[in-house]
Amino acid sequence: MELARLIARHPAFVLASATSDRWQHAPLGTHVRLPEPAASLRVTPMSDAVAVASQAHVALLCTPADVSARLAPELITRGVRVVDLSGAFRLSDPEAYPRWYRFTHPAPELLREARYAIPEIPAAAGAAPSAREARLIANPGCYATAAILALAPLVASGKALPAPLFADGKSGVTGAGRKVEERYLFAEVDENLSPYRAGDHQHTPEIEQALSRIAGARAELTFVPHLLPVRRGLLVTAFAQLAPGVLVDSLPSLFAQFYGDAPLVEVTEPERVTLALVTGTAVARVGVRGDAERGTVLAIAALDNLLKGAASQALQNLCDMTGAALGAL
Amino acid sequence: MELARLIARHPAFVLASATSDRWQHAPLGTHVRLPEPAASLRVTPMSDAVAVASQAHVALLCTPADVSARLAPELITRGVRVVDLSGAFRLSDPEAYPRWYRFTHPAPELLREARYAIPEIPAAAGAAPSAREARLIANPGCYATAAILALAPLVASGKALPAPLFADGKSGVTGAGRKVEERYLFAEVDENLSPYRAGDHQHTPEIEQALSRIAGARAELTFVPHLLPVRRGLLVTAFAQLAPGVLVDSLPSLFAQFYGDAPLVEVTEPERVTLALVTGTAVARVGVRGDAERGTVLAIAALDNLLKGAASQALQNLCDMTGAALGAL
Amino acid sequence: MELARLIARHPAFVLASATSDRWQHAPLGTHVRLPEPAASLRVTPMSDAVAVASQAHVALLCTPADVSARLAPELITRGVRVVDLSGAFRLSDPEAYPRWYRFTHPAPELLREARYAIPEIPAAAGAAPSAREARLIANPGCYATAAILALAPLVASGKALPAPLFADGKSGVTGAGRKVEERYLFAEVDENLSPYRAGDHQHTPEIEQALSRIAGARAELTFVPHLLPVRRGLLVTAFAQLAPGVLVDSLPSLFAQFYGDAPLVEVTEPERVTLALVTGTAVARVGVRGDAERGTVLAIAALDNLLKGAASQALQNLCDMTGAALGAL
Amino acid sequence: MELARLIARHPAFVLASATSDRWQHAPLGTHVRLPEPAASLRVTPMSDAVAVASQAHVALLCTPADVSARLAPELITRGVRVVDLSGAFRLSDPEAYPRWYRFTHPAPELLREARYAIPEIPAAAGAAPSAREARLIANPGCYATAAILALAPLVASGKALPAPLFADGKSGVTGAGRKVEERYLFAEVDENLSPYRAGDHQHTPEIEQALSRIAGARAELTFVPHLLPVRRGLLVTAFAQLAPGVLVDSLPSLFAQFYGDAPLVEVTEPERVTLALVTGTAVARVGVRGDAERGTVLAIAALDNLLKGAASQALQNLCDMTGAALGAL
Repeated sequence: MELARLIARHPAFVLASATSDRWQHAPLGTHVRLPEPAASLRVTPMSDAVAVASQAHVALLCTPADVSARLAPELITRGVRVVDLSGAFRLSDPEAYPRWYRFTHPAPELLREARYAIPEIPAAAGAAPSAREARLIANPGCYATAAILALAPLVASGKALPAPLFADGKSGVTGAGRKVEERYLFAEVDENLSPYRAGDHQHTPEIEQALSRIAGARAELTFVPHLLPVRRGLLVTAFAQLAPGVLVDSLPSLFAQFYGDAPLVEVTEPERVTLALVTGTAVARVGVRGDAERGTVLAIAALDNLLKGAASQALQNLCDMTGAALGAL
Repeated sequence: MELARLIARHPAFVLASATSDRWQHAPLGTHVRLPEPAASLRVTPMSDAVAVASQAHVALLCTPADVSARLAPELITRGVRVVDLSGAFRLSDPEAYPRWYRFTHPAPELLREARYAIPEIPAAAGAAPSAREARLIANPGCYATAAILALAPLVASGKALPAPLFADGKSGVTGAGRKVEERYLFAEVDENLSPYRAGDHQHTPEIEQALSRIAGARAELTFVPHLLPVRRGLLVTAFAQLAPGVLVDSLPSLFAQFYGDAPLVEVTEPERVTLALVTGTAVARVGVRGDAERGTVLAIAALDNLLKGAASQALQNLCDMTGAALGAL
Repeated sequence: MELARLIARHPAFVLASATSDRWQHAPLGTHVRLPEPAASLRVTPMSDAVAVASQAHVALLCTPADVSARLAPELITRGVRVVDLSGAFRLSDPEAYPRWYRFTHPAPELLREARYAIPEIPAAAGAAPSAREARLIANPGCYATAAILALAPLVASGKALPAPLFADGKSGVTGAGRKVEERYLFAEVDENLSPYRAGDHQHTPEIEQALSRIAGARAELTFVPHLLPVRRGLLVTAFAQLAPGVLVDSLPSLFAQFYGDAPLVEVTEPERVTLALVTGTAVARVGVRGDAERGTVLAIAALDNLLKGAASQALQNLCDMTGAALGAL
Repeated sequence: MELARLIARHPAFVLASATSDRWQHAPLGTHVRLPEPAASLRVTPMSDAVAVASQAHVALLCTPADVSARLAPELITRGVRVVDLSGAFRLSDPEAYPRWYRFTHPAPELLREARYAIPEIPAAAGAAPSAREARLIANPGCYATAAILALAPLVASGKALPAPLFADGKSGVTGAGRKVEERYLFAEVDENLSPYRAGDHQHTPEIEQALSRIAGARAELTFVPHLLPVRRGLLVTAFAQLAPGVLVDSLPSLFAQFYGDAPLVEVTEPERVTLALVTGTAVARVGVRGDAERGTVLAIAALDNLLKGAASQALQNLCDMTGAALGAL
């Protein structure tokens, strides 16, 4: 929904079709507030997805990982470039899929080619083709984007050790989509906070992979996400050990420099990294503070899980892929 | 308010008086739902606090740290035993007060004598007199109780290194009392999550002090608290490095054994440590999980910040001090 | 759950058994924090309900209306008295069931005998047997209790016309039980307010029936309920026209007098009738204000939908039925 | 803030200056996310308000009623047209100000000239000059807009009696601005619902004035607002008696016809009039349902209190005043 809205409003793109079994045959505007002509676009069923998407230059997949893993190769074969918002192409190691995603990857050869793309941190993509050349972009996970934004300047500069790293994530319920399950009932979520998949969340390996590429050394992360009683927004608080001799006062300027050119990453003090300051925007906020006495560092990142953690980052990647200007979001 | 309720209902105690400038002269029952005779008790002004409290066997101080630091010595001199709920007597090092509490301690000689008392973990009190003998009990902070409950079994057993330790805290707004400040407005807190005093919270030194005593070695903690959009409840997610050779599968039973005799600490799996399962109760929940691959461990504790994080723990300490049975809470 | 808790703690009653298909065979304490011996009670399946309940003096039915309508006659035949918390026996007119509850009533002869019991307002029960003698008590609906408490003093005294009456209800999500439906998801309820069954809610006829009995004239109500983004608590704002010549200043004392003997109904000014002041308690608050210029009156009532709106009112009725003292709730 | 955002993005207008004592001298973009050049605009102090605003064609006043009442005449004298968002010019009767706004109006002669402007309901403005000619537009209150949208088709058509009317309002906390008062604390608002100024809210007379003009007969309203635990959004549920012989089935089409030309008022069934469907938009939703048996009608309207209830309605009025196209909001 958010991505349809962003594409429909962007002057460089035309939303050519939309596919969904749930909403099939209804005009897209029934479910999302959209300007015309996007509002009148009839939603096609998933069985027509490949045929319909083959008419487009780029397909944006918001499907579950196992569905994306099957759809993307078919589209690429037909010459359609793909931005995939699932985890299907984020990990370059096919062996990781049974462990973290519970399926055997049907297109392991595409994993090497897929570009893991955080626009502000090209090094996270390793040796993949550039965005301009990529046939397949893997849009990073919401927690992963925040954790990588928080830790990248530290491990890239060697100021923090790449292992062990620790991250504590907190996300609003829209991270879970619209699943009708007991744990997402208002009566369960309101006035509550629940850890889930502690030490076992599927974004862990993509964060380790990206930070390892950025650090040039093996990064190791222990990560615990928590479900917050808010609709949207996500915040990650990360911890690391400082390398010997690092001056903690230099860390804020290191971050400011690292993100100097990036309009959508705002560096500020940790206490100004809050959900309310990022929800509804395409911006991520990042703050850092070192502890000289204990030889440690904390870094916090916040973003809107549906925008910088998904749809608006996909739009950034689409622009990078096509050379279009991002414009005002 | 919560403590008045607990004392008023407990068969072994009589609430002899209540002191507050804000509510002075009103019957206590105007502000708290209480049974008689507590409901009819007239609140006395703070200027009469010492005179009034001198008639009692024990005084329970819910005053700010600087007020408690002045009141407690006066009461003890008059033979009244004290349970202090502020930070005024939690740190044994007087030098720590200007740094963390922004005042010079007026009674440094009492700091050595005060018992830092988590009933389930006697080692947290170091060499202080036993609860039965103590004239002064320092009731631990809400975050501190949770962080210490989460990490004590790990550092006591040597299974985790005492430094560096990391903890991420999340608390409902009642942790802040009823302060009328912009940051506690509904419009600021709702649909938000805000870190505050990142790496600089005043509970850090009491957690390090307790864990150092428990570990028999210097513990070092980096701690970031966050304000949650909930009324009450507090959760701490803590991280440490495992000592070499530790079997991660042994950790849950280590915790179960460590808290085996403690009816108010429930050991469970990390995903069952949630706010909703502890708010309104005197119980803390604790869960642990090791990561063999990364050599790390995470431990999570949750409690009601107004009960196990303050009032009901004070009642536990009052019972330990007087030999009364705790009874059903 | 709330009712099990109240019964288990009440000195005059023993919780003899508990029946539920969802929780069958588990100890009741797995799902509700209960003292022993209630905590160890094994939940029996619904198929055994009549056999098991036949051993008891009183059965408390928390079943859907159509289930209660079948169970109650079987229990009464076996000499078990019944307090039913559903709508199955609230309406004395069998013709009303197909319209409001979508089933044909299987025991119309019991409808005349059932006592519609708001303990503070005996007149709401019409000509039914007294509570002490009743075999079957119909515990009122949550909205109905609030609406009747708000309007009864006005129509009983003739100060307001019994028709037209208007009521606007707002309830937390626990009014809907634990139904796993999309409309009760956090993402749907949070930051939202939704009217439902506008002018068509099934509590309308029981409110009209009770107020007609109280007024001695046909009462007519237009009622709209709304779903609030809170866990529990319910508030009804009601409006009526004043009879000619009524002095609006006399209304608060009319209410105070009407509820003078009732410890669980607190009369106060309208702005002090809030959810927060009643949730977690067995108390209802009621406020009234007349408008001399416009010849109208507003009355507001608030209560905890799970307590005074259900479980604690059932306990009141159980006490009235058996002659037990209610005690402190 | 919302209005600055709307003006800054609208192609027909230039935000020439912004005045605020609280934010004086800072660039406006420090406090509101704005595009350039609005973001760089320095906020001027209130003491310069008249001088600064005199350079503009139109001044938009978001000041308290007593401040607007003094500023507007000064600006109009200098040839600046005014859209006032306060209550200062909404009531044509100067006598009403001491009662409802607690000040004596300093410019009673302007009250007759001011246009009370709900763009979709010209009749609400009575005999005031047209928007194109008006020197002074009084932007309606948030509750008033919703109540009038809900009731106007009924009283305009004579299908409902203009007296007595009843309305129950529910608003998020942003209706109260950013006031730092105890009653707006998260701890007070969360999980709560509170009526306030019951039967005594200052929007009552402007609703009665508008509906009287629309009905051509004296309208009388009893109104109770409530504070909701949400950030933004407002919903009014209104009740009236039907005129004899009205067919209730005709009411939805009456509403559809009444608002047929108005793109920002969506007529739907009452259960689809929810906060979530209007917050963040400039749209109001309205639903109606008659009750043939009881001779009554209910109508519900919902809107975003900061947009259709304030800023976006002011933009509509600014467009009507200047002849600019509203465009997409």
